[in-house]
Amino acid sequence: MKDLDFFSEVGKLKEVPRTGWQIYSVADPETVTDHAFRVAVMALHYCKENTLRCVGMALVHDLPEVITGDIAVRNKKQDQDVTDEEKRRLEQAAAKQLFEKQPELYDLWLEYDENKTPEAKLVHDLDKVEMVLQALEYTRGRRTCEPLEEFFETSGPRIQTEKGKELWDEVRRRYLEICE
Amino acid sequence: MKDLDFFSEVGKLKEVPRTGWQIYSVADPETVTDHAFRVAVMALHYCKENTLRCVGMALVHDLPEVITGDIAVRNKKQDQDVTDEEKRRLEQAAAKQLFEKQPELYDLWLEYDENKTPEAKLVHDLDKVEMVLQALEYTRGRRTCEPLEEFFETSGPRIQTEKGKELWDEVRRRYLEICE
Repeated sequence: MKDLDFFSEVGKLKEVPRTGWQIYSVADPETVTDHAFRVAVMALHYCKENTLRCVGMALVHDLPEVITGDIAVRNKKQDQDVTDEEKRRLEQAAAKQLFEKQPELYDLWLEYDENKTPEAKLVHDLDKVEMVLQALEYTRGRRTCEPLEEFFETSGPRIQTEKGKELWDEVRRRYLEICE
Repeated sequence: MKDLDFFSEVGKLKEVPRTGWQIYSVADPETVTDHAFRVAVMALHYCKENTLRCVGMALVHDLPEVITGDIAVRNKKQDQDVTDEEKRRLEQAAAKQLFEKQPELYDLWLEYDENKTPEAKLVHDLDKVEMVLQALEYTRGRRTCEPLEEFFETSGPRIQTEKGKELWDEVRRRYLEICE
């Protein structure tokens, strides 16, 4: 029953806090699974074609973090623990290891990592929109006193789809309404 | 942009701890979204037909708890805050309210709640298997000193599918290995 061992491994992500919020002293921040859950619900709603592939990518996209931990993307690259290239290499190695006996999940992860199909690009965008939406919600709930500008700065220029841009812009507008 | 309001509502579940673990004094227990995330990954893996409907049901099945809270199913019915019928009625009313502008998600929730299709029955089982797997993991990690027998007692008799029974039995076997 190797599958159960795989799901126990996946379950460890319930204990992994999202590093970005910790850097900004958010009290008791969400876990990687809290985040990925909402990305998946958003994918179920927004992906009108090949919905299963979209939702599947959303579900698996962060799973290798159970091996690497959550490596935050920083705006000033000198603040980042490892380079973007090294981060990607680490995650690719972790994915190979984690999905060794789960070829179908690995295929979904690869499609996401390669970021070439329209579905992969949309899920990348939803991943970022979910993050800035969470930044908006933590700001509204005063879960941190620090401005969460960096989350918009790192994600905005990397949005790839029209739907992603529309959603990101609206979250940004709402964030500025509270912060100005 | 009503959708973003809906997703903000959904996001509140990231803050809702699973009541069952609190009753058994598990330190810093998982949230509803932590749990539902793993049910969805299991559905992606185990549902070989109509996979999208399965995964969709897994993603939405607990969303109305953002309104009702997580009402634990207890073995001794006198320990339960509300009767099973009342729990279901509350969740149905909450689902109607939450999904008012999300008819496709509501349809998935209804299919799950009615528990008639093979896919709905399997997702119900995965919901229970995920819970006992978590009980096994909390026991292994000594996150509580109390035996978590009740989670097996409430879920075992309600398993409906062959795959669910096979998984549940294996988790039970592993649990007894540590607890005997």
